[in-house]
Amino acid sequence: MEHRLEAELALSGTLPATVPTAELVPRIAADAIARTIGKRGEGRLAEWTLDGETLRVVFESTGPRPHQALLAFARRLGEELGKSAKVGVRSFTATRYRTEFPLDAAPTAPITLPIPHHLTVDGMLATLSLLSLSEEGLRDNWMDRAVALVQEKVRRQTYQGKEQYWSLIAASAPRETTFRADPTEEMLKRLWVRSGPTKGKWYLGPTAAHLLRTMERIAVEEVLRPLGFQEVVQPHHDSFDILLRTGHMEGLPGEFYYVAEPKTRDPAAWERFTDLVKITRQVPEAELARMVTPPTAVSCYAQCPTTYWWLSGRTLSLESLPLKIFDRAAVSNRYESGGRHGLERVDEFHRIEPVYLGAPDDLIALREKLLERYRHVFDEILELEWRTAWVTPFYMQQSGKVGVEDAEARVKGTIDFEAYLPYRGPRETSEWLEFQNLSIVGDKYTKAFSIKAQKGELWSGCTGIGLERWLTAFLSQKGLDAPGWPSGFRRYAGDLPADVRFL
Amino acid sequence: MEHRLEAELALSGTLPATVPTAELVPRIAADAIARTIGKRGEGRLAEWTLDGETLRVVFESTGPRPHQALLAFARRLGEELGKSAKVGVRSFTATRYRTEFPLDAAPTAPITLPIPHHLTVDGMLATLSLLSLSEEGLRDNWMDRAVALVQEKVRRQTYQGKEQYWSLIAASAPRETTFRADPTEEMLKRLWVRSGPTKGKWYLGPTAAHLLRTMERIAVEEVLRPLGFQEVVQPHHDSFDILLRTGHMEGLPGEFYYVAEPKTRDPAAWERFTDLVKITRQVPEAELARMVTPPTAVSCYAQCPTTYWWLSGRTLSLESLPLKIFDRAAVSNRYESGGRHGLERVDEFHRIEPVYLGAPDDLIALREKLLERYRHVFDEILELEWRTAWVTPFYMQQSGKVGVEDAEARVKGTIDFEAYLPYRGPRETSEWLEFQNLSIVGDKYTKAFSIKAQKGELWSGCTGIGLERWLTAFLSQKGLDAPGWPSGFRRYAGDLPADVRFL
Repeated sequence: MEHRLEAELALSGTLPATVPTAELVPRIAADAIARTIGKRGEGRLAEWTLDGETLRVVFESTGPRPHQALLAFARRLGEELGKSAKVGVRSFTATRYRTEFPLDAAPTAPITLPIPHHLTVDGMLATLSLLSLSEEGLRDNWMDRAVALVQEKVRRQTYQGKEQYWSLIAASAPRETTFRADPTEEMLKRLWVRSGPTKGKWYLGPTAAHLLRTMERIAVEEVLRPLGFQEVVQPHHDSFDILLRTGHMEGLPGEFYYVAEPKTRDPAAWERFTDLVKITRQVPEAELARMVTPPTAVSCYAQCPTTYWWLSGRTLSLESLPLKIFDRAAVSNRYESGGRHGLERVDEFHRIEPVYLGAPDDLIALREKLLERYRHVFDEILELEWRTAWVTPFYMQQSGKVGVEDAEARVKGTIDFEAYLPYRGPRETSEWLEFQNLSIVGDKYTKAFSIKAQKGELWSGCTGIGLERWLTAFLSQKGLDAPGWPSGFRRYAGDLPADVRFL
Repeated sequence: MEHRLEAELALSGTLPATVPTAELVPRIAADAIARTIGKRGEGRLAEWTLDGETLRVVFESTGPRPHQALLAFARRLGEELGKSAKVGVRSFTATRYRTEFPLDAAPTAPITLPIPHHLTVDGMLATLSLLSLSEEGLRDNWMDRAVALVQEKVRRQTYQGKEQYWSLIAASAPRETTFRADPTEEMLKRLWVRSGPTKGKWYLGPTAAHLLRTMERIAVEEVLRPLGFQEVVQPHHDSFDILLRTGHMEGLPGEFYYVAEPKTRDPAAWERFTDLVKITRQVPEAELARMVTPPTAVSCYAQCPTTYWWLSGRTLSLESLPLKIFDRAAVSNRYESGGRHGLERVDEFHRIEPVYLGAPDDLIALREKLLERYRHVFDEILELEWRTAWVTPFYMQQSGKVGVEDAEARVKGTIDFEAYLPYRGPRETSEWLEFQNLSIVGDKYTKAFSIKAQKGELWSGCTGIGLERWLTAFLSQKGLDAPGWPSGFRRYAGDLPADVRFL
């Protein structure tokens, strides 16, 4: 059979001779198989031996894997032996759990797993054995997840190096640009910004801050308020639990800034640390490591996960649907490492995150309205040269759905706005800046957080507005001098601050 | 003599007999003493012996301590021996460095230091010996800092348990209040807020967010804009270096949320972590600990330190003075532990931080104007019952200046606004809520960050506006129902959002 589970159950004592094991063990096993596999496949107790307090069993099956049968068997066995002989099942382990499953392709490189296992591949058929799998691993379906992981890794080998999915939707007319400099370099020269005290973060002086806030006002007044979005204020730490539910924890752990807490707030416990600081005027690293916890959370990476958490377990009344809210309180962090550049790719940025939940049709209609408002802003206020494209969001890449072209994908998925940055070179060959996106994610997050609608299906989506990106796109095309700016933007910006004069 | 420094210098070789050590060592020592102690005290080379490659010296002094003399001696000795005998001074250590100094009081409990030492106290005279003090410790004045630390600890023992300095300045008339509930409890009942996914942080739904933003608009439009404050946008991570310079690192390490970075962003290096997450649906703590750095920074605690960093090393033109700026981008964190309560004492809050730099007289005048604007807001818009008091800010407590009553302290220092919270009990006996403060700190921070004015003295100060505190003070006195709110506030608040309806 496809699946074979060899397990050892530790009993709490040896069985008295009065227990009819030869009848009891096969009967309970057959019952457990009937209740967990039933008509969906086949299963059997292939072998069993009792040796003192150790009961060894081997379950085999086709169709569903047999670990649920083992769990049911162990529970019922414990109940029956408890009653008849005052003996319980103390614990159990799968010494070897073997399964066969198909792959999408033959692997091109070795596949590793972080738990004890043995994996062989014959063409496109894999045979995986997990070794010493604990009761927790059995209860928690580690085998199913390990199989999915092997399949994902093979799929990823296949797609490695291929282009990310990208398909042009629309483009503005080209615009003449006279400014060709890197706007961050220009802002640095004018002392509008200072490169921050920690990696990839910036201090914006009055003029730069005024321009960033102008972008914020444009987004709120031209896009969000007209469409009925309401503001919320969300925490800027994301819990691990939330990121496990959204999938960010497995997708992007190398891009998070982690947050650690003091082990205590008691000044007496910190006395050695503070004394060392006072004497050496340095941070004593070893002492600090002793006084803080391991990371317990993450500084906001994306805002929408915490908004889904806010609504978790709740049922939204029809009168509140589609729900349209936005947060601009949480400051976002991404560890960009080698990728950081100026204000356009930073470790800290300010984003308005609109999130919407509603019936699929309502969200599709809302998307059209959002696109219309964005185009209005980019065409008539910022007067940008832009284009839009369908792209593959990370969670679809993660699950291997790369390159999907069907109608389903054109409903769920992400649209990117990209802006031409003259300083990077000719518009035809240079890389444009992704400066706005818009997604509908279906029921992925509403399911993950158990959010329901009073009636009907509940989908969700989001459309993060990165203010540094809007600002970079704008300044790259229009330059830093107000007279060259479009009148719509000048009206919003009003008088510029005097900024600070240094000698 | 008061101070005695026993040191060992390791030479790079034995000295040839041609070197006139009996003349050379006392001469260089006398010269070093003359140049570092000179007329400010007395010093002498009390003993010296040369034993192979080890030169032992003992410097004694009164007045200035003799470690600068030792440093000068070692440098000059190396130069002369290098020329005459090709022998250098490889390193040196103070085996024992003893000093005597007065205390403000006799200690009431043992005093500890985190570096090797021996401390005895006779009445109010202390004798401290540091043992095995490194070259770095000598260069870096660890003895001076250790002495200051011992004095501070004794002073703190004296003040322990005494009331914090607090002196009433002014108070509004009492106001009749009909609302007596804890506003956070009421907001929880109405689902306006949800207690966040991590400690002491809150998610504000549309109504609560609208009220918080209303407070923000009142502060900006009624206090900051009329007085010419300009907005900046600052990073929300504070570097250790900045916090060392402001003194926060030694003052409050148990109240910070620390930030740690990934050791790498490379997904291949994170594969074991991500695989474990995919199989176990838990965060593998040991693997995570292996992949992140120790803490490298702190999530914003106070905003003004980073603003001082922004201006560090710069000279402000007279036309920009007094400089008046504010930040509202950084979200503030404090690890409150047992102290947290509702929205009024939280681990995360939203604060506008106005900072001002200028001539002392200009700042004193600005303080009057700020007080006038605050009183206008609290009396005529929020209609609060409040009082103001002089209080001792942490940095003055840290340096032991507790209870200062002189004129100097009434120029530099902090004024707190406190609001009566009816739910806590009678106004005469219950604890009021500190909901606004205002400080002038003199040249403490401008000196620490080398910020200068084109001409004259440059002082600074700040007056953090905690929006959660304003909101709690207001709702505690006025309740959650709009009809009971003062008309000035209602005008600012406009129509309230519909909020989200749950089933």
